[in-house]
Formats: sequence, structure tokens, C-alpha cells
Amino acid sequence: MDLTLLYKMSYGLYIVSSSSGDKKSGCIVNTVFQITAEPPSIAVSINKDNFTSELINESGKFVVSILTEDASTNLIGKFGFKSGRDIDKFKDVGYKIAGNNCPAVIEGTTVIIECEVVNQVDLFTHTLFLAKIINLETVGNGIPMTYDYYHKVRKGTASKNAPTYQAKVANIPIEKDVSKMSKYVCDICGYEYDPKTGDTEHGIPAGTAFEDISEDWVCPICGASKSSFSKITV
Amino acid sequence: MDLTLLYKMSYGLYIVSSSSGDKKSGCIVNTVFQITAEPPSIAVSINKDNFTSELINESGKFVVSILTEDASTNLIGKFGFKSGRDIDKFKDVGYKIAGNNCPAVIEGTTVIIECEVVNQVDLFTHTLFLAKIINLETVGNGIPMTYDYYHKVRKGTASKNAPTYQAKVANIPIEKDVSKMSKYVCDICGYEYDPKTGDTEHGIPAGTAFEDISEDWVCPICGASKSSFSKITV
Repeated sequence: MDLTLLYKMSYGLYIVSSSSGDKKSGCIVNTVFQITAEPPSIAVSINKDNFTSELINESGKFVVSILTEDASTNLIGKFGFKSGRDIDKFKDVGYKIAGNNCPAVIEGTTVIIECEVVNQVDLFTHTLFLAKIINLETVGNGIPMTYDYYHKVRKGTASKNAPTYQAKVANIPIEKDVSKMSKYVCDICGYEYDPKTGDTEHGIPAGTAFEDISEDWVCPICGASKSSFSKITV
Repeated sequence: MDLTLLYKMSYGLYIVSSSSGDKKSGCIVNTVFQITAEPPSIAVSINKDNFTSELINESGKFVVSILTEDASTNLIGKFGFKSGRDIDKFKDVGYKIAGNNCPAVIEGTTVIIECEVVNQVDLFTHTLFLAKIINLETVGNGIPMTYDYYHKVRKGTASKNAPTYQAKVANIPIEKDVSKMSKYVCDICGYEYDPKTGDTEHGIPAGTAFEDISEDWVCPICGASKSSFSKITV
């Protein structure tokens, strides 16, 4: 069974944030959906291990920020691959305190949704929080980012409109020397550096061996240093 | 509170189909999401009133068809706006019987997901079916259709890349005579005919008054006849 076929399902990309007492955190989720129109309510699925999940359980409140295509890689890396137990995720991030007292990320965001939990459902590794919407506010004009856009465009491995990611990669002409170069994986977030595509967004042209990248280069997703990468041996 | 801001949330577009005995049906849903990778499982939210929901309750089985951007308007109209209690939705539609005995729509579809229900959760008007994936199969190569694409492109009222639908409509230059023409709404599916945009996909140019459309024109969404439309009085 080829589980990569599940990538054909469409999702958005969101930051869900919450606070309890003087603790605050947020994390990236892709599962947010409307349940009812009257009263307006939504459901949000969050991994139980996330600090954000703990805070929502304590306070019963959260905010959903609908991320846009221009959201920075740093924002996604920080909220997607680090824990609010270890760092203050809101440091150097554009945010405000929403009406329900939760911190709300407003950079790289189009709309924020303030919510109050009314129920929750156990989904194995995740909790599905069912919540009443108490306020909606436009904070930016960007185009909402889909999970597909994030995977295909932001990682730079295939064009946005490619019917399938796999096929496109197979079609890239491979130079003999590039084919001998190793891929490297970030131990923190799982980002794969592929010498065939480089990291053009950050000045590393296609065809650059990982070993030749300067030492101050960092993982484009989570900001980890070069030393956090491991060679992928096939 | 401007509930249209919720349109910024991203969804896919799917047909969920099921059978029980010699009854079969299917309906359009936009809420399908993966829950766990191991075992592979997904959740699907369906309105309790839908015939499909009744059949899933009886058989504990269903198939999800991931629709593509080229799915026909007739397919969407039939599965989205009519009831399987009244018509055989699979008549003249490309489908096959999947391994779990459910009918699976394969036209305008990229991947079908065969599922077995393991649990269900009450979400007010909807039931959230939690299901184990028992098979995945590629049946077409189209680009998965997002709900956003369906609303913006298929209804032809704004370009796919428009940052906001509202702003675009406001920017369309309005001829004096067009501004006096009435909008009409389909009583079956809620589609709005707007003389400012016409129905170019079916040969009705922008600027055509509803009254001037030929009598054999049908609702582009649900196929209802012109007589099913009511004038919108502002």
C-alpha cells in the first residue's frame, strides 16, 4: 500500500496558539475544519505531546492563525519543529494578544480565529478540540498557504503545478557528478538537502554538494546548523 | 463577525461513497483528514441527514474518491446537490466496485481510498467517521481539486490567484446597463447567476441578463432548469 498517495489530500497550514497563566506556546497544524455555521464552530486536531495541547487543556482557549504563502521559513521552522517547553516561540515574531487572552501570530497570516473549547475527542495520538468561534479578524492580505504548496513550492523540489512530485523529480536531468553526491537529512526536522536541487532560496545553487556549502548555512526549515545533518546512505 | 473569513481555510473536495445490501450512494464532502500513519487511518465528516451516512452506519465501509480540478460540473452537481434516496447517482458516472464492495467514483478522480469504520464521533449536525485504510489506488492523474479552486475558478467569479474574492468582484468595471440587471439564485443548490460575470464556461458571456439566456440553459452546478431560479431582490 503506497501511503504517499495520501499526500493528494488537501489541507491548509495553521498556527494554533494558546496560553495558561504566564505560559504561552503555539504549533503548526494542518487539520482545522468548520463543524457548524450556527453557532460558528470549528475542530482542530493537535498531537497530545505538544505543549500547546497542554495549554489548551488548562485554559480551554486558543487562536488559529491562517498562514499565507509568504509566511517565513523561520516562522514555520520555529512553530513546526521546536517545542514551546524549550524556547519562547514568540520572540522576534509578529504577534498580539487576542481578545481571549491568547497570543496570536499575525505575521505571515491572513485571518485569526479566537476560540473557546466546548468539547474534545480522543483520536489516538491526537486530540480533536471542538470549539466555538468567538471572534474572527483579518490581519493580512496574503494568499492562504496549502500544505501542498508548502511541500512542493517551499521545499523547492517541484513546481507548484506539477501533477505529481515524484514524476517531476524523476524528470530532472541528472549530471554525472551530481548523481554521485549524497543527500543529507536534518536530524531536527527531517528536511532533506538534495544536491540536485540545492537550496536556491538561500543562495545554494542546484548541483552544490552538501560538503561545499558554507558552515554558516542553516536548515531552511528549522534553522538547525549544518552539523545537525546526517548523510543519507542508500 | 464576518463568517466569510472562514473561507480562507483550505480543504480538498471528495466524494465519499458506500453501499449496504443493494442500496448505494455517495456525496461530496470537504472534510477528510489523516489521523494516524500506523495503522493508516483517516477521519471523514458527513452530514447525518445524508443517505451516504445512513449506508456507512449500516455497512461500516466506505470509499473516498479524491476529486481533481477537471471533475465535471455534472458530477459535482449530482453528488453534491441531489439525494441518493431520489436518484441513482452512479448512472452515467465512471465508477467501479472497490475491494470492500463499495461503489467508487473513478472519473474526475486521482486516488481512491478504501476504508473500514473503527469508531464514530458526534459533531452536532455531522458524524465524524474514524476509519482504517485498507487500500489505496491511483485511478487518474489530475491535480487534486481544493475547495478554494472550486469556489473561485469553477464558479468563474474570480481568478484562481486573486488574494480575495470580494476585492476582485468590486474591481470589475460595471456597465450601467449590467448594474441594473438582477442576479438570480438556483433554488436547488444555491448557485447565483450574476449578469456581471455570466456563465462563460457554458457560452453565456459576461453582461448577459438572466432573462436573455436561452431556455435550455441549466444550472452549471446542479443541472436544474432555468425555471428553478428565483430573482434576487436587493
